[in-house]
Amino acid sequence: MKAYQELSKEELLSLKAQLEAEYEKAKGKGLKLDMSRGKPSIAQLNMAMDFMDVINSESDMKTEEGVDVRNYGILDGIPESKHLMADIMGVDFEKVIVCGNASLTIMFDTVARSMTHGVLGSTPWCKLEQVKFLCPVPGYDRHFSILEYFGIDMVNVPMTPQGPDMDAVEKLVAEDESIKGIWCVPKYSNPQGYSYSNETVKRFAALKPAAEDFRIYWDNAYAVHHLYEDRQDEILDILAECENAGNSDMVYVFGSTSKVTFAGSGIAAVASSPANLDAIRKSMTIQTIGYDKINQLRHVRYFNNFEGVKAHMRKHAEIMRPKFEIVWEILDRELTGLGIGSWTKPNGGYFISFDGMEGCAKAIVSKCKEAGMVLTGAGATYPYGKDPSDSNIRIAPTFPTTEEMAQATELFALCVKLVSVEKLLEER
Amino acid sequence: MKAYQELSKEELLSLKAQLEAEYEKAKGKGLKLDMSRGKPSIAQLNMAMDFMDVINSESDMKTEEGVDVRNYGILDGIPESKHLMADIMGVDFEKVIVCGNASLTIMFDTVARSMTHGVLGSTPWCKLEQVKFLCPVPGYDRHFSILEYFGIDMVNVPMTPQGPDMDAVEKLVAEDESIKGIWCVPKYSNPQGYSYSNETVKRFAALKPAAEDFRIYWDNAYAVHHLYEDRQDEILDILAECENAGNSDMVYVFGSTSKVTFAGSGIAAVASSPANLDAIRKSMTIQTIGYDKINQLRHVRYFNNFEGVKAHMRKHAEIMRPKFEIVWEILDRELTGLGIGSWTKPNGGYFISFDGMEGCAKAIVSKCKEAGMVLTGAGATYPYGKDPSDSNIRIAPTFPTTEEMAQATELFALCVKLVSVEKLLEER
Repeated sequence: MKAYQELSKEELLSLKAQLEAEYEKAKGKGLKLDMSRGKPSIAQLNMAMDFMDVINSESDMKTEEGVDVRNYGILDGIPESKHLMADIMGVDFEKVIVCGNASLTIMFDTVARSMTHGVLGSTPWCKLEQVKFLCPVPGYDRHFSILEYFGIDMVNVPMTPQGPDMDAVEKLVAEDESIKGIWCVPKYSNPQGYSYSNETVKRFAALKPAAEDFRIYWDNAYAVHHLYEDRQDEILDILAECENAGNSDMVYVFGSTSKVTFAGSGIAAVASSPANLDAIRKSMTIQTIGYDKINQLRHVRYFNNFEGVKAHMRKHAEIMRPKFEIVWEILDRELTGLGIGSWTKPNGGYFISFDGMEGCAKAIVSKCKEAGMVLTGAGATYPYGKDPSDSNIRIAPTFPTTEEMAQATELFALCVKLVSVEKLLEER
Repeated sequence: MKAYQELSKEELLSLKAQLEAEYEKAKGKGLKLDMSRGKPSIAQLNMAMDFMDVINSESDMKTEEGVDVRNYGILDGIPESKHLMADIMGVDFEKVIVCGNASLTIMFDTVARSMTHGVLGSTPWCKLEQVKFLCPVPGYDRHFSILEYFGIDMVNVPMTPQGPDMDAVEKLVAEDESIKGIWCVPKYSNPQGYSYSNETVKRFAALKPAAEDFRIYWDNAYAVHHLYEDRQDEILDILAECENAGNSDMVYVFGSTSKVTFAGSGIAAVASSPANLDAIRKSMTIQTIGYDKINQLRHVRYFNNFEGVKAHMRKHAEIMRPKFEIVWEILDRELTGLGIGSWTKPNGGYFISFDGMEGCAKAIVSKCKEAGMVLTGAGATYPYGKDPSDSNIRIAPTFPTTEEMAQATELFALCVKLVSVEKLLEER
């Protein structure tokens, strides 16, 4: 396979004509494919339908401690649901608060609370001239949206296969008191699927931020979302590491079952130090009388324990794995050696990250769209939707069927080739 | 029956001795009664258990429009749940957003959003020197807690059986630009059970506030919570009235099914003008991917329509009515004519409001507690927990059984008498 960069102008022109013909043919198929969001597939949802039957009119509606889950009471989650979420998030039970249906909401509320009330007694951020967050890139668009909504400035930090560039992180947080946080997806990161190395986690725990109200926002969204039985990434417990490093209050850990049971009808949790949890409870007690305890109990009854979760996630993996593998198979076959793109091969999570040639991502996404395939908008993986090199594209293989993923990836590879040829010709 | 005020010192002393003997006897019974919060009773919860069965593994999990409720998607509520909540709240369907499990959370978020982002382009409240709310008193403690949490100053406005003192409201909002809102529980108000007259609602809709970001926070929490078939309070649709008065954007209406299906596992909603709804959706889209649509669908399937809700609420009434009536029977029998207290007799809602002699409420609550009966803290019905005349006590008859309510009210009446006698003796 000859790299496109090495082709002569004539070769590129002839390749372009051939690719354009293929593209016209593909357009003619009238495809309707959606790879835009990390949604579970219908097969995954169908597989969990028994979840609807574990609490019924015959059920005992009391918690282990005898509290009636149908009534008001219990602010921060029924204890058995805390155990379940602690196991899923890989943290200690007593550090967990279980909330409603979305960890995104807990994250939003955590930033909102810092805006209006500060962090453990610090100046409320809304009273400060400038507040900044570090954003490992590429990353999760909804994390960035929260910051943009609150007018918090975002500073890009490059990701590596071991996690964020820690030299940069250490330097920035030590020097700049206006840096109040960093978003992390430490396991099977969105979109690359990278998992933080032990060294990265330890360096996070040992950070010496200039701002006393600096916090690590540790979104462990894909904690149990492995694709393989024999290749599973594991990460260190950041809470324990922070404790050991004398930085107990420096991190919030988030997690949910949105991609375990049902998206939108799961339970979400936050884990942190006693001082942080007290601050969270103090605002929770104003914001709510309590979350949906019936759904918390439903989760506990459905899974029984962490073994139940793992067994369930193995079934998810069986459905998802072929979709990831077909993407890799086609990208390997179509693009290897051409010098026009690289892609990640994670052991879990919900995404594959693709990097095309500089300045090509938007054009690829738009070419795909023209042929009936919706991808996450180019740039979405960067703060303000601006990918400085316009090269990153997030591929979400979970929702379509394996057959659709095959079609979609063929089309995607074709668009990558065509856009890359056009780009190279522009430069000649 | 002779009023206590007319008794001689000797008569009071002899009465005191007699009441003290009765009180010691009551204490000896070792009662354990809780009338502190407006919680549904176990009988009410048991009555709704079929709710757990309407969505099961055999169910069609799609909305009328074909959206799979198990997956991500639909930010502001499935349409059929909007119809249901619109009927419950007495507003138009297209003005409704359905959210998660608690209207309290929607109210908190509405105030929080105003703090950080202002209201339809106004200055964020966190940037202002002072923000004030009008608080009809007595009122709902959790409304006041939200304001206290955000450092918003509260201005008391007296309640009347027709609603808040509108002369005071009109004058205050017209004169003071720092007044940004007023809390209202327009039907079966907490704690008095008063419902706003048509004139009151019309005067609200016609308010001319100095602040463009002034809003009426209309918490229609007891919209369908009637005690009687033949005596049901109804209120005008504030949204329609505001529209007619050219004040479309001036009100947010809140409601939930927390006291219809299960407390904590209901669905909550907000209704407002298109401009306000857009602002709400703009922050919702950052805060969540969507609320629990399965639970929204569960509500629709369980009730079918508004007739189903009304039939269900009749069953609630049958359980609750005897409890309210036993309270009234005992208070009538024990306290009428004594000049030491008055109480409300609402047609619905969750509370009875009791007003004792000035300076007696705290002492009554504490005397009850000493004998094993927990009441809502005296003062809780006022901002900052400060009842200026220390006279109001909220009675919550719903959670105990009718027999317990009888015991509790006997004890309560005894404590009212004893404290009143002590108070009168102090003044002699």
